[in-house]
Amino acid sequence: MRYVKLTLAYDGSAYAGWQVQPGQRTIQGVMETALAEIVGRSVRTMASGRTDAGVHALGQVVGFRADTDLEPESLQRALNARLPCDIAVLEALGLDGPFHPVRDAVRKRYRYVIHDSPVRNVFARHYAWHVRARLDAAAMGTAAKCLVGTHDFSSFESAGAPRPDSVRTIFALPVFRGQGDGRNVVTIEIEADGFLYNMVRAIVGTLVEVGRGARPPVWVGEVLASRDRGRAGPTAPPHGLFLVKVEYRTMP
Amino acid sequence: MRYVKLTLAYDGSAYAGWQVQPGQRTIQGVMETALAEIVGRSVRTMASGRTDAGVHALGQVVGFRADTDLEPESLQRALNARLPCDIAVLEALGLDGPFHPVRDAVRKRYRYVIHDSPVRNVFARHYAWHVRARLDAAAMGTAAKCLVGTHDFSSFESAGAPRPDSVRTIFALPVFRGQGDGRNVVTIEIEADGFLYNMVRAIVGTLVEVGRGARPPVWVGEVLASRDRGRAGPTAPPHGLFLVKVEYRTMP
Repeated sequence: MRYVKLTLAYDGSAYAGWQVQPGQRTIQGVMETALAEIVGRSVRTMASGRTDAGVHALGQVVGFRADTDLEPESLQRALNARLPCDIAVLEALGLDGPFHPVRDAVRKRYRYVIHDSPVRNVFARHYAWHVRARLDAAAMGTAAKCLVGTHDFSSFESAGAPRPDSVRTIFALPVFRGQGDGRNVVTIEIEADGFLYNMVRAIVGTLVEVGRGARPPVWVGEVLASRDRGRAGPTAPPHGLFLVKVEYRTMP
Repeated sequence: MRYVKLTLAYDGSAYAGWQVQPGQRTIQGVMETALAEIVGRSVRTMASGRTDAGVHALGQVVGFRADTDLEPESLQRALNARLPCDIAVLEALGLDGPFHPVRDAVRKRYRYVIHDSPVRNVFARHYAWHVRARLDAAAMGTAAKCLVGTHDFSSFESAGAPRPDSVRTIFALPVFRGQGDGRNVVTIEIEADGFLYNMVRAIVGTLVEVGRGARPPVWVGEVLASRDRGRAGPTAPPHGLFLVKVEYRTMP
């Protein structure tokens, strides 16, 4: 196979994000070291998006040119044997033609997990944002509805990595509280055709202002319309964020 | 209040178990340091049972003589502010009379979590035993039924901490596979009036032999009847084990 598409899960807690950076332990760096050991030469990988330090993935997609005789299943096993236990290859596919993990993506889904309770959940400390106030998940859901659709999301874009245009389409933005053991967990999922830098975390920080009762749901529509990042809520911390899946156009 | 009953949750990953040991970081050690800072003198705590290194708690119960003017809620807040983020006080109760967390316990529930899938779950690596073979949870449930009731559990007691007698009563021992996102998770819960040393982990290791198809369900009844630890399966690793709750006789 010439090209490979990998689906990865990783716990981002111990990494300075996806992208290779000098002197930092990154997921890309660890992946490329393992790949080089397996195929016997250096390999440059590309992910569907660069997750930040502390952000997790349930289904990150990574592509690279392999030019190897290995079967995809053998490559997967060899990688899982070499990778540290906080990274796992869930699937490996061999492709004949080139594959661009960023440009070919048509839809991505992120999940953000909030634990709202006066006392911390020790098991969620790396996997959820702990908010002591009880959140009004229904009000957050109402506010979220005005973000669904095609809009200019400048109000929810952090400085530092400006995209050429800031219009994106959000297909779905459910907010739901768990039941039973999950009754102190509020989950926000965002599915869109693409995301601006820190867009999910800025939306979550803004919805939490509504959930706390500091702002009414209609305020979120005003923030969106203002195209002014200064109007939105704070950026939610990275460790509650999970890249859930990336969908691609049908391969030729 | 003179005596205090605390309910704790902790992630045991970073600790050498509950009990204070020289030169080791233990949950008891960290708790007693925090308590001493709050009440201004050394405090000796006792837990319902000594969890081993790597074992977790959702509802460990700890008692101690406090002799303090602090309200229980204030003590809880002060402890949660001082304790590391992998230990949390879920509840604090003040008692006038003495309370013995071991002797006064009438029922305890443990949970053991197994992730059975060819590829590891990176998020469960500290909170589940990863077994690559697909387990037959129904066969494990059938085997588990013969352990319910009052029996001599010598076959499931590790050497090292012999109890005066090895008869215990298991009230319930459900084995179930999750659904949806939990479809690769087999959970075993054991509720009993008391447990021998490593009893849960020896039972789990034995049930997994059945789940793998290495032994038929009736074999577990034969192991129990033999009263011979050498007949049982291996001891399951500590990191899949959670102390869920401890029930006490009604306080006077």
